[in-house]
Amino acid sequence: MFLFLSFIFPGIVLAGEGPTAQSNAAAIDTVWVLICAYLVFLMHAGFTMVEAGFTRAKNIVNIMMKNMLTVSLGALLFFVIGFGLAFGGDAGSFIGVKGFCLAGIQDLDFGIPMHAFWLFQAVFCATAATIVSGAMAERTKFIAYIVFTAVITAFIYPIVVHWVWNGEGWLAQKGFIDFAGSTVVHGVGGWSALVGAWLVGARLGKYGKEGEVRAIPGHNIALGTLGTLLLWLGWFGFNPGSSLAGTDPSIGLIATTTMLAASAGVIGAMIFTWLRHGKPDMTMVLNGALGGLVGITAGCASVSPLGSIIIGIICGIILPVSVSFFDKTVKIDDPVGAISVHGVCGAFGTLSVGFLAVDGGLLYGGGSSLLITQFTGVIAVLAWTLGLGYIACKIINAVTGLRVSHEEEMEGLDIGEHGMEAYGDFILRPVDALGLSQGHSIEGKY
Amino acid sequence: MFLFLSFIFPGIVLAGEGPTAQSNAAAIDTVWVLICAYLVFLMHAGFTMVEAGFTRAKNIVNIMMKNMLTVSLGALLFFVIGFGLAFGGDAGSFIGVKGFCLAGIQDLDFGIPMHAFWLFQAVFCATAATIVSGAMAERTKFIAYIVFTAVITAFIYPIVVHWVWNGEGWLAQKGFIDFAGSTVVHGVGGWSALVGAWLVGARLGKYGKEGEVRAIPGHNIALGTLGTLLLWLGWFGFNPGSSLAGTDPSIGLIATTTMLAASAGVIGAMIFTWLRHGKPDMTMVLNGALGGLVGITAGCASVSPLGSIIIGIICGIILPVSVSFFDKTVKIDDPVGAISVHGVCGAFGTLSVGFLAVDGGLLYGGGSSLLITQFTGVIAVLAWTLGLGYIACKIINAVTGLRVSHEEEMEGLDIGEHGMEAYGDFILRPVDALGLSQGHSIEGKY
Amino acid sequence: MFLFLSFIFPGIVLAGEGPTAQSNAAAIDTVWVLICAYLVFLMHAGFTMVEAGFTRAKNIVNIMMKNMLTVSLGALLFFVIGFGLAFGGDAGSFIGVKGFCLAGIQDLDFGIPMHAFWLFQAVFCATAATIVSGAMAERTKFIAYIVFTAVITAFIYPIVVHWVWNGEGWLAQKGFIDFAGSTVVHGVGGWSALVGAWLVGARLGKYGKEGEVRAIPGHNIALGTLGTLLLWLGWFGFNPGSSLAGTDPSIGLIATTTMLAASAGVIGAMIFTWLRHGKPDMTMVLNGALGGLVGITAGCASVSPLGSIIIGIICGIILPVSVSFFDKTVKIDDPVGAISVHGVCGAFGTLSVGFLAVDGGLLYGGGSSLLITQFTGVIAVLAWTLGLGYIACKIINAVTGLRVSHEEEMEGLDIGEHGMEAYGDFILRPVDALGLSQGHSIEGKY
Repeated sequence: MFLFLSFIFPGIVLAGEGPTAQSNAAAIDTVWVLICAYLVFLMHAGFTMVEAGFTRAKNIVNIMMKNMLTVSLGALLFFVIGFGLAFGGDAGSFIGVKGFCLAGIQDLDFGIPMHAFWLFQAVFCATAATIVSGAMAERTKFIAYIVFTAVITAFIYPIVVHWVWNGEGWLAQKGFIDFAGSTVVHGVGGWSALVGAWLVGARLGKYGKEGEVRAIPGHNIALGTLGTLLLWLGWFGFNPGSSLAGTDPSIGLIATTTMLAASAGVIGAMIFTWLRHGKPDMTMVLNGALGGLVGITAGCASVSPLGSIIIGIICGIILPVSVSFFDKTVKIDDPVGAISVHGVCGAFGTLSVGFLAVDGGLLYGGGSSLLITQFTGVIAVLAWTLGLGYIACKIINAVTGLRVSHEEEMEGLDIGEHGMEAYGDFILRPVDALGLSQGHSIEGKY
Repeated sequence: MFLFLSFIFPGIVLAGEGPTAQSNAAAIDTVWVLICAYLVFLMHAGFTMVEAGFTRAKNIVNIMMKNMLTVSLGALLFFVIGFGLAFGGDAGSFIGVKGFCLAGIQDLDFGIPMHAFWLFQAVFCATAATIVSGAMAERTKFIAYIVFTAVITAFIYPIVVHWVWNGEGWLAQKGFIDFAGSTVVHGVGGWSALVGAWLVGARLGKYGKEGEVRAIPGHNIALGTLGTLLLWLGWFGFNPGSSLAGTDPSIGLIATTTMLAASAGVIGAMIFTWLRHGKPDMTMVLNGALGGLVGITAGCASVSPLGSIIIGIICGIILPVSVSFFDKTVKIDDPVGAISVHGVCGAFGTLSVGFLAVDGGLLYGGGSSLLITQFTGVIAVLAWTLGLGYIACKIINAVTGLRVSHEEEMEGLDIGEHGMEAYGDFILRPVDALGLSQGHSIEGKY
Repeated sequence: MFLFLSFIFPGIVLAGEGPTAQSNAAAIDTVWVLICAYLVFLMHAGFTMVEAGFTRAKNIVNIMMKNMLTVSLGALLFFVIGFGLAFGGDAGSFIGVKGFCLAGIQDLDFGIPMHAFWLFQAVFCATAATIVSGAMAERTKFIAYIVFTAVITAFIYPIVVHWVWNGEGWLAQKGFIDFAGSTVVHGVGGWSALVGAWLVGARLGKYGKEGEVRAIPGHNIALGTLGTLLLWLGWFGFNPGSSLAGTDPSIGLIATTTMLAASAGVIGAMIFTWLRHGKPDMTMVLNGALGGLVGITAGCASVSPLGSIIIGIICGIILPVSVSFFDKTVKIDDPVGAISVHGVCGAFGTLSVGFLAVDGGLLYGGGSSLLITQFTGVIAVLAWTLGLGYIACKIINAVTGLRVSHEEEMEGLDIGEHGMEAYGDFILRPVDALGLSQGHSIEGKY
C-alpha cells in the first residue's frame, strides 16, 4: 500500500502507458483465478470441519494437525517438485521435466501470470491430498500420514495432472474431459483414501467378532455441516475457476451446474435414505451434497443444467449405497465416507460426461467414442493411484508403521501424538474397552 | 482446465476476435455478480450457525438438516418454477409466465449471462426461505417445514420479486425502492416466520401457567457469533452485488453504507440493552448487527453514510424492543428473533428510504410521495405474505400436522426426526419435565 | 437490483457513454479492492474463533462481545476520526487534518472510489485493534477494553498509517517498506497487546507462588483451527489487496509469497516443537501459520518466493521461542500468543525486507540503507505504540479499572460482564480455587 507514493518510487508506475482492452482482459482473468484459488483454499477449512464433525472428540487435535500439515506441506512440495512434474514442459506425454521451484519456465505461457496460475494449482494439489486424511482418521500414525501426503502431493497427483491438464499429456491428447478434476483431483484423493484405509485397517471396535458392523458417530454435526457448506462454497472457485478466465462467459453456466448438482445430491440422498430407513439421514445428506459436487466437477462446463440435476440426483443415491458397500460388504473402515464421495462419485461423474456432454455425449447423439475415452481415463488414474499408493503405504508401514498402538487409539490420538486435548473444559462420555464412546445406541445403520 | 489445449478443442477459443471494452465490461459485471452470489450463498452457513447457536443441543441435527434442505430445495424449485414467475416476462404487472427450467427466455436481456443472473437470484430466494427456519425451530415437523419452504421458494417469494425487481411489476412501476430486498427478501422471510411461529405455537416450557415467560438460552454462543459474522460478510455480496454491475462505481458506497449500518446496529443494541438491563446483551448485539444490515438493505444505494449510521442505530434499538414485544406481549415464540430482525427491521428500513434517500427522501426536501410509495410496498408484501403463509400453514397442518409430539419435543427432534444425536461425545445437562435444560437460571429477560 | 428499470430511472444509466479501457481498469481495481476488503473483514471471524479456541469456556461470551464491539466501534471511529488523521491531507509529515466523516476530501485522489478505499482501510484498522483482545482475554473489564479499543482505532493506529502509507508521512518519505502492514497493523496491534497484557496482569493461577508457570489450555481446538484457516484466507485479501489495483500483475506473486510463508511457518513450528518437546505442538503450529503470515506482510511484494519461504520458516521458529520468553522469562500472560505472533514476527518481517528485498535488500547487494530505514520504522512504531498505549491504559485503570474482580474472574466473565453462559447445554469441568478448570494435566510447556 503506497498511496501517493509515485513520486518516491516512480518505477512502480506503468511506464507511461495506459490500460488497453488486452491488459484489462488479462487483469480480469488474473483477478478471477486468484479469487477462485482463495475459495479453493477455503475448502481446506471445509475438509477440516467435515472430518472433525464425523469423528470423535478424542482425536480432534490430531485431525486439526493433519489438515494444517496437508495444506502447508502440499504447497511447499508442489512449489519445489510437483508443479514442475505437472506443467514443466513434457517428456513422452507422461511427465514434466522443469519448473522446479518455478525456475526456468519463464518462456511458458499460462494465460495468466505464472504465480497466479501456480497458486490455483497448488490449492488443488492440497485438496487431492486432504481427502485421504478423513478416510485414515482416528488410527493412523502422524508421521506415516506426513510421508503419504508427501508422496501424493509431490508425485502421484502431479503426474496425473500432467496427463490430463497439460496439453501434451497422453490423456489430454485422447480428448479426455475432466474440466475441474472429478478424476484428476477427487479420483486421486479417493483411490488413495481407499488404499490407505484398507492397509491401515479398521478402527478398534468398528467390526465385532461375530462380523457385526458398528456405527461410530461423529462428535459434532454442527461443525460437519459448516464444513460441508464451506466445501460447497469452495467448489464455486474449484469449477468455474478452472476456466482460468473471468472473460469466459461460460463461468455463469458452470456455477449454475455446480449449484444444481449439489442441491440435487442433497435431495437425492435425503429421499433415498428416508425411503430406505424411514428417516432422512444427516450424514448421508451432507455427503450427498459433496457427492453431487464431485460428480459434476468433470462435466460442469459440458452438460446442461438439467444434465447437472440428473448427475446430482444419481450421486445422491449412489453415495449411501457405496458407503454401505464399503462399510458392510468390503469392510473397509472409512470414517467420513471419502472413498465413496470422492472415488466413486468422481468416477461416475467422469463417465457421465460421456453420456451427457451436450457436445459429444452418447445421449446427445455423439456416439460412444467420448464415453470410451472417459472410461480409459478413469481406469488409468485408478490403476496408477492404487498401484503407487499401495507401494507407498507398504514402504511406510515397513519403516515407521502405519498405525498407532491399541492403547493410544483407545485413549485417543490427541494425547498420544500431540500431548494435549481438544476440549479441555468439557466433560466427555467415558470410553469403553474398545475405545468407543458410551451412550451411542444407534448401531450399524450403514 | 485445458491448458495448452487450444489445438485440441479449437472451438473453445473465441473465434479470432480479441477482447473489447464492451466485452471486458460484460466480464467485469459477470465476475462481480458471481462472486457476490457466492457471498450470498455463504449466508446459508451464517444462518445455519446463528440458528444453531441460539437453540438447544438436542435439536441441532434437525436444524442442520432443515438448512441443507432449504438451500437445495430452494435452488431446484427456483430453477424449475420460481425464476420464471419472477423474471419470465409479465402478465398484468403481477406474475411472470415463462422461463421455467430457464427455457424459452433466450431473448430476454439480463445485462449479464442468464445463468450468472439466475444463480444470484437463486441464492436470494433460498435466503428468504431460510429465515423461517429459525423462528419455527425446535418444534416443527420436518415434513411440514419442507412443504412450507417449497411454497415460499416456488410461489410466495418469486411473485414479490416480480412486483419489485422486474421492471413491469406494479410496485416497480410505482417507483418503490428496495435495492437489495429489505422487504422483498427479509419482509417475505420475516412475515412468513411470523405466521409460521404463531401457528406452530410456542415451545414447551416457554410460557408458564401463570403467564410467566422463560428465556430458553442457546447452546453455543461461539457458533452464533461466527454465524453473525458470516452473515455480515455475505451482506457485502447481497447489497453491493444487487447493482448487478462491477462497473458501477457506486458499489464502494453501497459496501460502506452496509458496513456502517451493521456497526451502528451493534453499538445501538449494546448501549440500549446496557442502559436497560445493566449489562450489554450478547444475543441482542448479534441480532443488532443483523437488524442494521436488514435495515440498510433497501436504501444502501440511496442514503448517505451518515444516513446509514442513523438507520443502523435505530434498528439496533428497535430490535430488542420488538423482540420483547413479540416474546412477552404478543407471546409468539421466536427462538432466534427472526421476526424482529427480518420483518420489523426490514419494514423500518424500507420506510426509512422515504425519509433518508438523498434523492427524493422527505428529509432531503423530496416531499412525501416516495414515503407513501414505500409504505404501500411494505403493506402489500406484508399482506400477501401473511395471507398466503396463513393458508399454506393451515393446509399443511391439516395434512401432515405442523408440530411434533410433546414427547419428541422434550427428547429433542434429533432423535425423533433423524435418529441421531449432534454431540455424541459430550455429556449434556439433563432435561426437566418441560424439556428445558437444567442449569439455566436467567429467566425472562426479554 | 432494478432489472429493466432504465425506463423508470433513466438517471442511473451512464449518460450515453459506453465503457472505455480507462473505466474498465478503474472498475477492475474497485472490484478487486472491495473483494479484498471483504476477505479482511472475514479475518474478524478468524480472530474471534482463534481467541475463543485458545481460552476457557467460561469467558466465551465476553470474547464474542469484545470482537463484535471491536469491528463495529473501530469502523465507526475510523469513519468519524481515524480516516481523516490517516489520509486527510498532511500537517508536518505527521498527521492528517481533514476528511473526518469523509467530508471535504472530494479533491483527493485515492486511485479508486473514495468509499471503496475507506472500506479497505477501515477493516485494516479494526484488525489492528482486535489483536489486543486475545492478549488481554479472560480478566479485562469490558468497559476498559472498549475505551482502549477506541484509543487505538481513533488515534494510535491512524497516525502510524499516516506516517507510512500517506505519501507525505515521514516514514514514507524515508523509503520505509511495509507493503501491507507487518509493522503498521501487526506492530501496532502486537505492541498494544504487550502493554495491555503487562498492565492488566496475569490471569489468576497462571503463575504460582513458587514461580511455577501453568499452561491454561484453550477450550476448543477445532474452533481455533477454523479461525486460523479463516485468517489465512483473509490474508489473501490483506496482502494482495494492498496493491490497491487488480490491474497490477504482481498480485499473483504477492498471493504466492503469502501462501508459501504461511506454509513454511507451519512446517517451521512443527519441526521445531517436535525436536524440542518430542511432539509436534498444535497451538504452536497454528500460531506458526499466523507468524509466517505476519512476517511476510511487509515484504510480500518485494521478496522472491524462496525469500518468503525463508521468512516463514524463521517466523515458525521465532514464534515458540518468543512465546516461551514472554510466558516464562518476562512472565507476561498472553493467552493467545498475540505479542509474539503480531509484535515479534511483525518486527522480524519488517526487518527481513532489508535483507531479502530483491530490489535493495542487503543480501541482494543493496547495501544497508534499506535495512536501517526498516529498523528506524520498527523502532518508531514500537516506541509510539508502547508510549501511547501505556498512557492510555494507566488513565483507563485510574478511571474504570482495567481488571475484573477475582471473584468474577474465577466464575468467568460471561456471567459477571454479560449475565449469560456460552454453552448452556453442556456440562463443564469444575473450576478449582484458582479458577482453573480441573482435568488439565499438561503443565507449563511454554
